[in-house]
Amino acid sequence: MKTVRELGLAARDAAKIVKTASTDTKNRALSAIAEALLADQDVILKANQQDLFAACAAGMSASMQDRLRLTAERIEQMSKAVRQLVQMEDPIGQVLEGKRRPNGLQIEKVRVPLGVIGIIFEARPNVTVDAATLCLKAGNTVLLRGGKEAIHSNRALVLCMRTAVKEAGLPEDAICLVEDTNRTSAQEMMELRGILDVLIPRGGAGLIRAVAEQAKVPVIETGVGNCHIYVDESADLDMAISVIVNAKTSRPSVCNAAESLLVHETVAEALLGPLAAAMPQVKMHGCEKTCAILRQAVPATDADYGMEYLDYEMSVKVVSSLEEAIEHIGRYSTGHSESIITRNLEHARQFTEQVDSAAVYVNASTRFTDGGEFGLGAEIGISTQKLHARGPMGLSELTSCKYIVQGSGQIR
Amino acid sequence: MKTVRELGLAARDAAKIVKTASTDTKNRALSAIAEALLADQDVILKANQQDLFAACAAGMSASMQDRLRLTAERIEQMSKAVRQLVQMEDPIGQVLEGKRRPNGLQIEKVRVPLGVIGIIFEARPNVTVDAATLCLKAGNTVLLRGGKEAIHSNRALVLCMRTAVKEAGLPEDAICLVEDTNRTSAQEMMELRGILDVLIPRGGAGLIRAVAEQAKVPVIETGVGNCHIYVDESADLDMAISVIVNAKTSRPSVCNAAESLLVHETVAEALLGPLAAAMPQVKMHGCEKTCAILRQAVPATDADYGMEYLDYEMSVKVVSSLEEAIEHIGRYSTGHSESIITRNLEHARQFTEQVDSAAVYVNASTRFTDGGEFGLGAEIGISTQKLHARGPMGLSELTSCKYIVQGSGQIR
Repeated sequence: MKTVRELGLAARDAAKIVKTASTDTKNRALSAIAEALLADQDVILKANQQDLFAACAAGMSASMQDRLRLTAERIEQMSKAVRQLVQMEDPIGQVLEGKRRPNGLQIEKVRVPLGVIGIIFEARPNVTVDAATLCLKAGNTVLLRGGKEAIHSNRALVLCMRTAVKEAGLPEDAICLVEDTNRTSAQEMMELRGILDVLIPRGGAGLIRAVAEQAKVPVIETGVGNCHIYVDESADLDMAISVIVNAKTSRPSVCNAAESLLVHETVAEALLGPLAAAMPQVKMHGCEKTCAILRQAVPATDADYGMEYLDYEMSVKVVSSLEEAIEHIGRYSTGHSESIITRNLEHARQFTEQVDSAAVYVNASTRFTDGGEFGLGAEIGISTQKLHARGPMGLSELTSCKYIVQGSGQIR
Repeated sequence: MKTVRELGLAARDAAKIVKTASTDTKNRALSAIAEALLADQDVILKANQQDLFAACAAGMSASMQDRLRLTAERIEQMSKAVRQLVQMEDPIGQVLEGKRRPNGLQIEKVRVPLGVIGIIFEARPNVTVDAATLCLKAGNTVLLRGGKEAIHSNRALVLCMRTAVKEAGLPEDAICLVEDTNRTSAQEMMELRGILDVLIPRGGAGLIRAVAEQAKVPVIETGVGNCHIYVDESADLDMAISVIVNAKTSRPSVCNAAESLLVHETVAEALLGPLAAAMPQVKMHGCEKTCAILRQAVPATDADYGMEYLDYEMSVKVVSSLEEAIEHIGRYSTGHSESIITRNLEHARQFTEQVDSAAVYVNASTRFTDGGEFGLGAEIGISTQKLHARGPMGLSELTSCKYIVQGSGQIR
């Protein structure tokens, strides 16, 4: 078995070819992957069964098992997503800016691939295909390291994709998998300075924090979402309830689900009762005033306000002003998505200007922070940092740029 | 004296105000700085004298002393540069993209400040003013940590700027200086997760590598330049000599100076003799073939090919093809600037496409990689990494973006 470093070097060698591959060649490889996923369906499902048996024996939770599970229908969806990627515009080679300088130098800023992208993720086999194909479309090669619970599925998927890529005339090392899934292999990826151009951790807050702190290569932090909704004193309360119920309960396990509710004191009483009635399955962790209004709420600790529950739970705080709400968000938010429900134009302006998150909403659910919903197509994650990319990361966010300067002997 | 962490928190508090300051307010503060630098000239020069006395006593090299030295003329230049910054367009608030989605959501991607920028640099007091004012214009606050040899100069400059900023109605903590210049203070800056939005090291390769490897906050690597010039077999040799002499000798201490020469074997003999005669002060570290042609060359080691001399020295290698040159550059380059001298269109295309550096030139000196020369105005450094910014970093590179989404109760 190749070491992590050897795999990284293989991906780096492949990157030299993939970075200059034509759009047609890359699309041919993607189409081959889309076909191969369907053709190899039985092998992939069988490998996935192995993972599921082991997961079941190890007592994995039902929701985790659901993320791990592949079905004919899900493979069909994966294949379809790859076909959609073929249709998308290739970002590579775009001239972002260009000018002729007074001395005659012709300067162009051109979009180029990042190079080798490392991705550390958990037991979700669909990420394996999504990530590899997005990276490939943007001219990058990829070093994947998925959760150990999905190792058989990932091996089958990667073998299927590598074979397809090779048949299309590109190096199979465009897609490399770290098969050793113990802890040190993730650590080794973080050390690949000069080999990985960027490392993207996708998963829980603990994983992301560990990678950001320990990696010696550039990192893009993604996806931890302690998302807030603030109900202003001027809010349409019916709209507020509809948005909160949607943001909290439509899919509580995802990063753009709301986790914390702030409500202006003048509307707290009118809002909280009907809201609790509208989502009885949600456990409320409230401040003192919340608990006085809502008998079923339990007292919130400071830790609750910082918590990404990813479940039918929510922290609730009654505030006495917009400023207090913005201050609270500044303190506890992870910088993902926040929303204000208001009829007041000035408050909307103040909120969008002062709240420092990737996506700031007025009168809409935080659930929209998503590449597809933003019209960017497929995404590799939601960046919650401010460098390089912020918010949903599509193809353009998987690229860099370089300056190409044409002269005729100019000296300085 | 405040701790590094306390200074970081002060800069973060100030950032909440500076990020929403109007262009007029920021420009007023910059104008006040430009004036104050002139008004406080005597105090600043006196502080600089203290640093120079100590540097002289400690046996600092003449070129280092020159970088440390301030004069009335240099302060005048600094002040003028700040005035030019006032004239530049404010990047903050630019709408980068915008669309209305089918569900009626109005999505805008808007340019916003990064927040708090940490800068670790060496004993060059002009960086103190350049960096602080560039950050301020882009709505950021800054935590500066300069070399200990410039501490008196930096204290005087920062006091002068803080007073001016305060008079203009912005918080003086928009510009904070780490006065403790021992090693642990740099280390402490690298730990300021959640306080610094980005850390930019400016200085030698060792400093930059240490920061990139150890920092727990996002880093932008700048300025290490092992820049190559490749002379193709079809090159105009007079042009080649003119460009090489310029790139090597016009200012050997800067990062865009050429450090390594690759020459095609068919023109090696015709080029190297006249080149050596044109820059007799440059010591050549050559491969075997080079040494056979040039008696005065010394044998190059592998380390020489990776060296950023920043002096009148150059590594030289005779290659047998363009591919060998590109391969060599891929191995030894720091990804800053490389140039090909050629008359062959296909070779020019291959070189610009395959060489993976921030700036790739055809028939021009590498010395042009510079914010001013690229028409970007003042720069905070040359990024040699691929994330966020690549090449000269001007005002736009000191910003991030966020999505502002306006709705009317949309749910998903």
